[in-house]
Amino acid sequence: MDSIHVTLPDGKVVEVQRGTRIDEITPAIATNGNIVAAKIDGRPVDLSRRLDSDCSLAWVSIDSPDGLDVLRHSTAHLMAQAVQSLFPGTQVTIGPTIEDGFYYDFKRDRSFTPEEIEKIEARMEEIAKANLKVTREEMLRSQAIELFRRMGEDYKVAIIEDLPDEVVSLYRQGDWVDLCRGPHVPSTGAIKAFKLTGVAGAYWRGNEKNEMLQRIYGTAWPTRQALKEHLRLLEEAKKRDHRKLGQELGLFMISDVVGPGLPIWLPKGAMVRSILERYIVDIERSMGYQHVNTPQLARVDLYKRSGHWDHFKENMYPPMEFENKEELVLRPMNCPHHITIYKHGLHSYRDLPVRLAELGTMYRYERSGALSGLSRVRAMTLNDAHIFCLPEQIQAETVGVLRLIQRVYRDFGLKDYWYRLSLRNPMDKANFVDNDAMWDGAEGYLRQALDEVGVSFKEAVGEAAYYGPKIDVQLNDVLGHSETLSTVQLDFYLPERFELEYVDRDGQYKRPVMIHRGVISTMERMMAFLIEHYAGNFPLWLAPVQVKVVTVTDQQLDYARKVSAELTAAGWRVELDERNEKLGYKIREAQLAKIPYAVVIGDKEVEAQTVAPRRRGGENVAPLSVSDFIQRLKFEVAQERGEA
Amino acid sequence: MDSIHVTLPDGKVVEVQRGTRIDEITPAIATNGNIVAAKIDGRPVDLSRRLDSDCSLAWVSIDSPDGLDVLRHSTAHLMAQAVQSLFPGTQVTIGPTIEDGFYYDFKRDRSFTPEEIEKIEARMEEIAKANLKVTREEMLRSQAIELFRRMGEDYKVAIIEDLPDEVVSLYRQGDWVDLCRGPHVPSTGAIKAFKLTGVAGAYWRGNEKNEMLQRIYGTAWPTRQALKEHLRLLEEAKKRDHRKLGQELGLFMISDVVGPGLPIWLPKGAMVRSILERYIVDIERSMGYQHVNTPQLARVDLYKRSGHWDHFKENMYPPMEFENKEELVLRPMNCPHHITIYKHGLHSYRDLPVRLAELGTMYRYERSGALSGLSRVRAMTLNDAHIFCLPEQIQAETVGVLRLIQRVYRDFGLKDYWYRLSLRNPMDKANFVDNDAMWDGAEGYLRQALDEVGVSFKEAVGEAAYYGPKIDVQLNDVLGHSETLSTVQLDFYLPERFELEYVDRDGQYKRPVMIHRGVISTMERMMAFLIEHYAGNFPLWLAPVQVKVVTVTDQQLDYARKVSAELTAAGWRVELDERNEKLGYKIREAQLAKIPYAVVIGDKEVEAQTVAPRRRGGENVAPLSVSDFIQRLKFEVAQERGEA
Repeated sequence: MDSIHVTLPDGKVVEVQRGTRIDEITPAIATNGNIVAAKIDGRPVDLSRRLDSDCSLAWVSIDSPDGLDVLRHSTAHLMAQAVQSLFPGTQVTIGPTIEDGFYYDFKRDRSFTPEEIEKIEARMEEIAKANLKVTREEMLRSQAIELFRRMGEDYKVAIIEDLPDEVVSLYRQGDWVDLCRGPHVPSTGAIKAFKLTGVAGAYWRGNEKNEMLQRIYGTAWPTRQALKEHLRLLEEAKKRDHRKLGQELGLFMISDVVGPGLPIWLPKGAMVRSILERYIVDIERSMGYQHVNTPQLARVDLYKRSGHWDHFKENMYPPMEFENKEELVLRPMNCPHHITIYKHGLHSYRDLPVRLAELGTMYRYERSGALSGLSRVRAMTLNDAHIFCLPEQIQAETVGVLRLIQRVYRDFGLKDYWYRLSLRNPMDKANFVDNDAMWDGAEGYLRQALDEVGVSFKEAVGEAAYYGPKIDVQLNDVLGHSETLSTVQLDFYLPERFELEYVDRDGQYKRPVMIHRGVISTMERMMAFLIEHYAGNFPLWLAPVQVKVVTVTDQQLDYARKVSAELTAAGWRVELDERNEKLGYKIREAQLAKIPYAVVIGDKEVEAQTVAPRRRGGENVAPLSVSDFIQRLKFEVAQERGEA
Repeated sequence: MDSIHVTLPDGKVVEVQRGTRIDEITPAIATNGNIVAAKIDGRPVDLSRRLDSDCSLAWVSIDSPDGLDVLRHSTAHLMAQAVQSLFPGTQVTIGPTIEDGFYYDFKRDRSFTPEEIEKIEARMEEIAKANLKVTREEMLRSQAIELFRRMGEDYKVAIIEDLPDEVVSLYRQGDWVDLCRGPHVPSTGAIKAFKLTGVAGAYWRGNEKNEMLQRIYGTAWPTRQALKEHLRLLEEAKKRDHRKLGQELGLFMISDVVGPGLPIWLPKGAMVRSILERYIVDIERSMGYQHVNTPQLARVDLYKRSGHWDHFKENMYPPMEFENKEELVLRPMNCPHHITIYKHGLHSYRDLPVRLAELGTMYRYERSGALSGLSRVRAMTLNDAHIFCLPEQIQAETVGVLRLIQRVYRDFGLKDYWYRLSLRNPMDKANFVDNDAMWDGAEGYLRQALDEVGVSFKEAVGEAAYYGPKIDVQLNDVLGHSETLSTVQLDFYLPERFELEYVDRDGQYKRPVMIHRGVISTMERMMAFLIEHYAGNFPLWLAPVQVKVVTVTDQQLDYARKVSAELTAAGWRVELDERNEKLGYKIREAQLAKIPYAVVIGDKEVEAQTVAPRRRGGENVAPLSVSDFIQRLKFEVAQERGEA
């Protein structure tokens, strides 16, 4: 008898017949409903997969990242089945999973109405309840093409025709079939909590020259409870959406006349940006950075030398031809300009580190379909810096940057963040410079720097850049997704390409190391992040308008003007509402504008020469003199910044 | 007898025979040596010109602007004659006057050596002393072509062939002849003080595809005294040249790799720029300007609507093509972006004026040959603002801008400036919008604003923009040349093109007026101006490094570090020289770097806990405590800014 050895998740090794199905080995576990797939030697497969050689086995539970992916992929199939049963003639195309959910693109002449979406959800519930078995089968490419051609599924035919494989896999549930690699849940009954969340148009193969498809988005979760929580958070995220708040609070606009992806900062948004810019420049200067100001374009040759032209060209703007065939191009990154400055002078080991910083505006070519508010744009200004240092300074410089990041996050009240140490994949010689000694050294420096600062971190193998490891600081948003705000990146590659040098103690010319680092990211992304993080309620020190002065009647206008002038002279950002409107209306407007303080002035305040401040949340402060109010404001800013 | 009436400069009318020469009418005046030409009805002519109809006559004295122009033009001829007599085979091309002098371009295979230039000057002196009569003659175009062809002057032939006139004029002195409109001095003896100042290559007709010519520059003055003074000022200007000082003081660099005309601001220059930027933004905000931040490019359509595409295209960068044939172009001006913001909202008459300001980066296409340091560049950042106001607010807004300009000039210690009111030429309907009522109103507003501020001004007819009058503020440089730093410009045209509106008191939609204004110009030009104005000796408040701390020996390093830290903490820009060098050397270096204060620390200072400051000029300040020194610095800044 032909038998194989299978190592079970608990470490036990069992001997089974070659060809045994996974769910036959430990049926009690495999069918407890919480397990939706398995892994053979780390590769996700269906529970019904037959084992044909020695292997180790792991379970994929529905609430694990892999399990959620299987669940959402299966829910996409469920949706496609419901759509095709309800709307015959609709063709399927592709249906991948995305963060928190999935979508499926259908070929149909018109888009789906809200009523149709409800019907689809209802049909999905029916099919899930019917608990149809989901089965995998394999067939020759040519047979699959024949099958889908008979079914009238032109897009599937096109997809299979592009596949290199000789054998393809299909999944069936009931009378419905789809081309798919899998794995999938064992039966539709495993899908218990889902919701269709939106419809959109999408071009076949993402190319606007192709025909338009109808995309339906959905989300799926292991339990109704988890689904409910996710939908609640989605609502919260929608309220915080920086595109919505940006418009409501008059922070920025996008104009079709100027161009997509090119945000225009309106006075209030520009005020916040200018506070951010001065804040970070001042801190950086106090920490030994030298700010510079470099042109936002350069000759194409500069990017040929840096390697951007060969490896990053599709993200760059088209070049502009000047006289004598000279070509200039808007810069996609600031590093080559800072390198030009470094190369301008001679450097002794005594002058290093040189820390060049800039609020550097850069340009990236993005398809208009990919643009979104301030978070995906075609022009952006980065809080950028490049540290040129001796190899023995790497750790100390990295520690300096990490402490700067901590200081800045404290000032912004950011607490929900974590460190990721992004390393090379030592097996992958194609995507990472092939120099193990360099990598080992560089990764060691970063690890030691994180240890010296005393923070914990997750290691992410294969997440490094081509030319060096980096530390990413990840912030979590309201949906629990993390995004990188700050980075510290080691680079031994550009110093080589540009032949950077310093004269060492021994009189020899040597290569410095470059550290690329960003603390508050681009002004655009930081602004998008802060709007959503604060839900538009900027802390006092960042608020574009800090105090709104409102009078009960016109009688108090003179005194109100005096109060406004005093506050303004003391450096506070004040607006005086001179309109002849009801007090309640004026206060309500100040609240909607999310101004931290409304200062009310009635006859009593005029008489007592006081002001009656009202905090944004609704809290009333007992009337006090203007100078006491200023003390209070100062203390509040110090508190916000973690200084008090 | 055929007689005509001539009105003399003193108002007297004389009757003379038609055909009488000007210098025959009042020979005593016409030949006193100070008079080099005359004007017939305002048009400059030779003194030997014959009068053929009634006219009024004026004298052109050698020290008047017209007279200097005649003198310099004649000196160019003198030089060309000298060159051709010394270097047979050299061909003449063109020889115009320029500010303070002239040049002449010669066709010659090699450039002129310093020794040859000396020889040319000597030969010029000889010809001047010979006092050759300068005579004008006229001939048919075809005859002139024949004449110059015989002389082997191919360039002159080409020039005449391009002339539309049937009759051309020639000037002879001795055996030398040149095609010229004139007028000229009556004889070479009138040329008494000149100097050849430089040589350069220049392309025939300014086109680099043509052959290279040899250009010689020169200057000429009425007296040797005036020439000497001019040469002294030239030396002074050379020392102050911002390109030279910019390099010596490490303020900026130009890199061929990045591109010509794209200055890179090095740390010290970027520090000054950042002080300038914060300074002007803070003042503008305190005066009710709202700063915004707009993209540095836009769709070409925006500039089609504004009119820039039709009228300013040759000064714009080439457009960049994006997906779907969308064309983006770097902006040559910021106005269309600010107009886009204005149009974004509804405006009531109560909200006006809206004052939108920006440090707006713009791009102008300049030929590489025209570029120079920071003063002629391809990318620049303008201290720009646009005021959208009611017609009845024009005067008050203009007064506001003029007061802002006065305040700023006081802070920079600028005193040598004057106001120019640039008006339309009412006769010239082609170059100025044809709407007399508009012009009369607009010019009146500006005139009244100047009167209200109480400053005198010169009117410059024909210097207005196409669409409205403006006030230019002219600064004089060390050579006495004036350049425009600030402008206030009225514009009724763009509001019309963009259909800008506000709702007036009566509920009707009406057009606002736009005022374009710049106070400190572009950062590039202001920086170039300030470097030259201060000769690199930035006042304390603007100096990139304000205090250099130097120790007598290494013994005082600890205390010196403490002093540096205290000064830095108080907001001063400090450098500590930690090198083990001689005190005199370190002080000398601080002086060369034009740092306002070198603070010397020896044993006595450590013991007394004082510092011994030395002013940039050499003045020693008696030792004082750090806090007293800080008081002194503060007072000095207040004095510089006209506040103390």
